[in-house]
Amino acid sequence: MSTERRGLLIVYTGNGKGKTTAALGLVLRAVGQGLRCCVIQFLKSARGRWGETVVAEKLGIEWHQMGRGFVFRPEAQTQDAALAREAWALAQERILSGEIDLIVLDEFSYLFEFGWLNAAEVARWLSEQRPKQLHVVVTGRNMPEALVEMADLVTEMVLVKHPYDAGIGAQAGIEF
Amino acid sequence: MSTERRGLLIVYTGNGKGKTTAALGLVLRAVGQGLRCCVIQFLKSARGRWGETVVAEKLGIEWHQMGRGFVFRPEAQTQDAALAREAWALAQERILSGEIDLIVLDEFSYLFEFGWLNAAEVARWLSEQRPKQLHVVVTGRNMPEALVEMADLVTEMVLVKHPYDAGIGAQAGIEF
Repeated sequence: MSTERRGLLIVYTGNGKGKTTAALGLVLRAVGQGLRCCVIQFLKSARGRWGETVVAEKLGIEWHQMGRGFVFRPEAQTQDAALAREAWALAQERILSGEIDLIVLDEFSYLFEFGWLNAAEVARWLSEQRPKQLHVVVTGRNMPEALVEMADLVTEMVLVKHPYDAGIGAQAGIEF
Repeated sequence: MSTERRGLLIVYTGNGKGKTTAALGLVLRAVGQGLRCCVIQFLKSARGRWGETVVAEKLGIEWHQMGRGFVFRPEAQTQDAALAREAWALAQERILSGEIDLIVLDEFSYLFEFGWLNAAEVARWLSEQRPKQLHVVVTGRNMPEALVEMADLVTEMVLVKHPYDAGIGAQAGIEF
């Protein structure tokens, strides 16, 4: 087994809860080991009051929320597509910057699902361009096969039981 | 759907990576929302250099590492059992303390697997004794059915691909 330092491509996918939080937990661990971390959230809006961003600021984590929230209206598709490609351009810039050791691309799979990015092109770009020691963590349901195939670590979060099923509302500090 | 504040029992189980980190990500989120958090790690040794504990200190998270590490030697079974029960006693004390809003019991399932605790008894204690607003997050492979059954949210982390398969060693900031 090699002990060289090597950037991993990590995929958290599946329909269960815990994909984004697993990525955040990795960031917490990485920050503790002195790695420079960047989080790009493709769907979450900066307007929301998210517990994680409060802490990110305290820990000096670079954090970008590029989305307009989770609601997609057909009439806003063009605007969303432009915003999504802008977010991916930012991700590419940060990946090439040499200023970070780990980047999280949160809810990345939606960009492919909505047809805003081409999975094969993104996979090729990542495999050719990303620095060898950079860790890349991508989350989201239905991750394209092109990314799963080139990943080093893939976990599928499977929904077994969800509190909404029992009529319990979203809890602060848990869901957001 | 009810909007009352209600403590959830959350289970992260399965053979995939991301159980502990998902719990840590929840803690990060909860701390950001002002919740008081406590983490008890039943297997991890305080002797290890874990990235997450460095950050926990910075964020004022109460953190206990009760294990002696991941190696179980038959000759140390009695000592391990005593340590495990001591850790569970601490967890019970913290749960009843009224001083915390969220508690993580990390690698909790191993206590049942090794026969150190009885799952039905622990489930009954949790259901009868824990404060109504306290969130409890338990992680570990092969979570006993008694806990899965009473949980509000259960995610199974399924191993799809692991870097060890490709001969890549553990990376600081990712695996520890």
